[in-house]
Amino acid sequence: MHFADGKTTACLNVFPSQMATCSDLNTTAFVNRMIQAEKPDFIVFTGDNIFGFDATDSAKSLDAGFSAAINTLSQLNPAEAHVIDGFGNYNLEIGGVEDTRFENKSVLNLYFLDNGDYSTVPSIPGYGWIKPSQQFWFQRTSQRLQREYSSKPNPQKGTAPGLVYFHVPLPEFANFDSSNFTGVKQEGISSASVNSGFFTTMVEAGDVKAVFTGHDHLNDFCGELTDIQLCYAGGFGYHAYGKAGWSRRARVVVASLEKTESGLWGAVKSIKTWKRLDDENLTAIDRQVLWSKNSVGHPFAASWMCDWNLKLLFLEH
Amino acid sequence: MHFADGKTTACLNVFPSQMATCSDLNTTAFVNRMIQAEKPDFIVFTGDNIFGFDATDSAKSLDAGFSAAINTLSQLNPAEAHVIDGFGNYNLEIGGVEDTRFENKSVLNLYFLDNGDYSTVPSIPGYGWIKPSQQFWFQRTSQRLQREYSSKPNPQKGTAPGLVYFHVPLPEFANFDSSNFTGVKQEGISSASVNSGFFTTMVEAGDVKAVFTGHDHLNDFCGELTDIQLCYAGGFGYHAYGKAGWSRRARVVVASLEKTESGLWGAVKSIKTWKRLDDENLTAIDRQVLWSKNSVGHPFAASWMCDWNLKLLFLEH
Repeated sequence: MHFADGKTTACLNVFPSQMATCSDLNTTAFVNRMIQAEKPDFIVFTGDNIFGFDATDSAKSLDAGFSAAINTLSQLNPAEAHVIDGFGNYNLEIGGVEDTRFENKSVLNLYFLDNGDYSTVPSIPGYGWIKPSQQFWFQRTSQRLQREYSSKPNPQKGTAPGLVYFHVPLPEFANFDSSNFTGVKQEGISSASVNSGFFTTMVEAGDVKAVFTGHDHLNDFCGELTDIQLCYAGGFGYHAYGKAGWSRRARVVVASLEKTESGLWGAVKSIKTWKRLDDENLTAIDRQVLWSKNSVGHPFAASWMCDWNLKLLFLEH
Repeated sequence: MHFADGKTTACLNVFPSQMATCSDLNTTAFVNRMIQAEKPDFIVFTGDNIFGFDATDSAKSLDAGFSAAINTLSQLNPAEAHVIDGFGNYNLEIGGVEDTRFENKSVLNLYFLDNGDYSTVPSIPGYGWIKPSQQFWFQRTSQRLQREYSSKPNPQKGTAPGLVYFHVPLPEFANFDSSNFTGVKQEGISSASVNSGFFTTMVEAGDVKAVFTGHDHLNDFCGELTDIQLCYAGGFGYHAYGKAGWSRRARVVVASLEKTESGLWGAVKSIKTWKRLDDENLTAIDRQVLWSKNSVGHPFAASWMCDWNLKLLFLEH
């Protein structure tokens, strides 16, 4: 969001005619409109939430930026990892519906990792990356979740899908062009200058279906590589660089449950996504299926609206 | 070495005139000649030691291949790592000279890692790689060694140099051409099809000065990237693909100690390398300084022969 001091903080890259009335409060208004429109179950802020350089009081700026999303499930770091790089590495497990075989299973797993800001290694320039300690924790957590999913009572086949959120795109985001992604790429991929292997680690883990990052405000695409969707949302905040005439936007992710033979809710059957633009109608664009339990890439069907859905709103600066 | 059944196992890629008398015993003879010529303190076999498909009895083939190097310091896996991928992940610490300030310090650290053979992840083709569990162990071990080196009694400045050995070259080996390496590149870099981040992990660790791999028999170069030398040795074994007329070869690595102001042996001051060809004179080629404590890249000086040296012989298939 690049939030700073609120109404006294100017917007970047809007039309000159908009400048006089544009401030951080436009960012706040957009958060509130998104919540009204989508009624999300959960909102993920993927970093650069405030713009520290222009924030008179960082804590106040954070509070103001997050104010619309009152409660938090964020954690400092996993209790079981004694040595881990960064802060805010944690996972959330979304339990199945009560009174079904899934009530003690996590049917959707969310992972959050901290890639830091800049490299702290003098010989490596550029942005930070996800370190071995974090990857080791991620791998063990993924293994545990998969074990629990397939364990008694009510052992399940396959794995529950996982979604991974962090800030800086991986070098693998550069593997796409307009022929194989949905959305736009209007600037380079500002990944770390080195590859720290986290994409490989996620592929090996086997449960991750999609990765969501921010950082590059003018890219908003999703592209699939080795069965993992790599997604941007596009810039959300008004005190962040953007492009006049190219609306600020947010990504929505919806996980839908299947009906089992007994007529009860079961496992996650699909994960869909779209973006909404901060225009008059909050126009939804680029609807796509990120993952489907039975077949990847089937057409986006309207029937999902009748399903049990978990909706995640994803706001990046 | 690609050792199989000894004298009944034929050579590959030698001149037709040599075929009748060439076998695994030529590999054995080359090991013995190298030991006679260099009198190494330690020999590293970096994998593909036997060629299982042609070995009637794998254990016997291993024994025969290693026979010239009677004792072993290899370990199954580190005791402190409860969960680690592969086998033969361990480190060796080379203590400073007795009755000096370095006698309880490791002045040279050797790391050995198992990158497996092939990928076990269905969606990733090709060779194996070094996993997060191994990188996490490596990173913690490097940190511990650096802490001990700079701790009382006799705290030392800087870090003791580290050398890392494994089998399959990293993707970063592809960053060189003849303008920036010493040796030859006669085939592609057969790294894993994914980047698992171990190069980044080594750069971040800060103590690693050189990496030695095998796998590509027709490449024998060393190239420097971000202050780490990435080295092949070139093929050693005769029952392995090679190139007739391009001698089988082995790499020698020598670590030399400095004299301190008190006239006693101190820290490692330089790490040098060369290769020897399996020709009549065991011709030494491509002498170079891999690392020097005070300045990187100074000319190869003859004075090192008067120094305290630890000599490592490095045999790859």
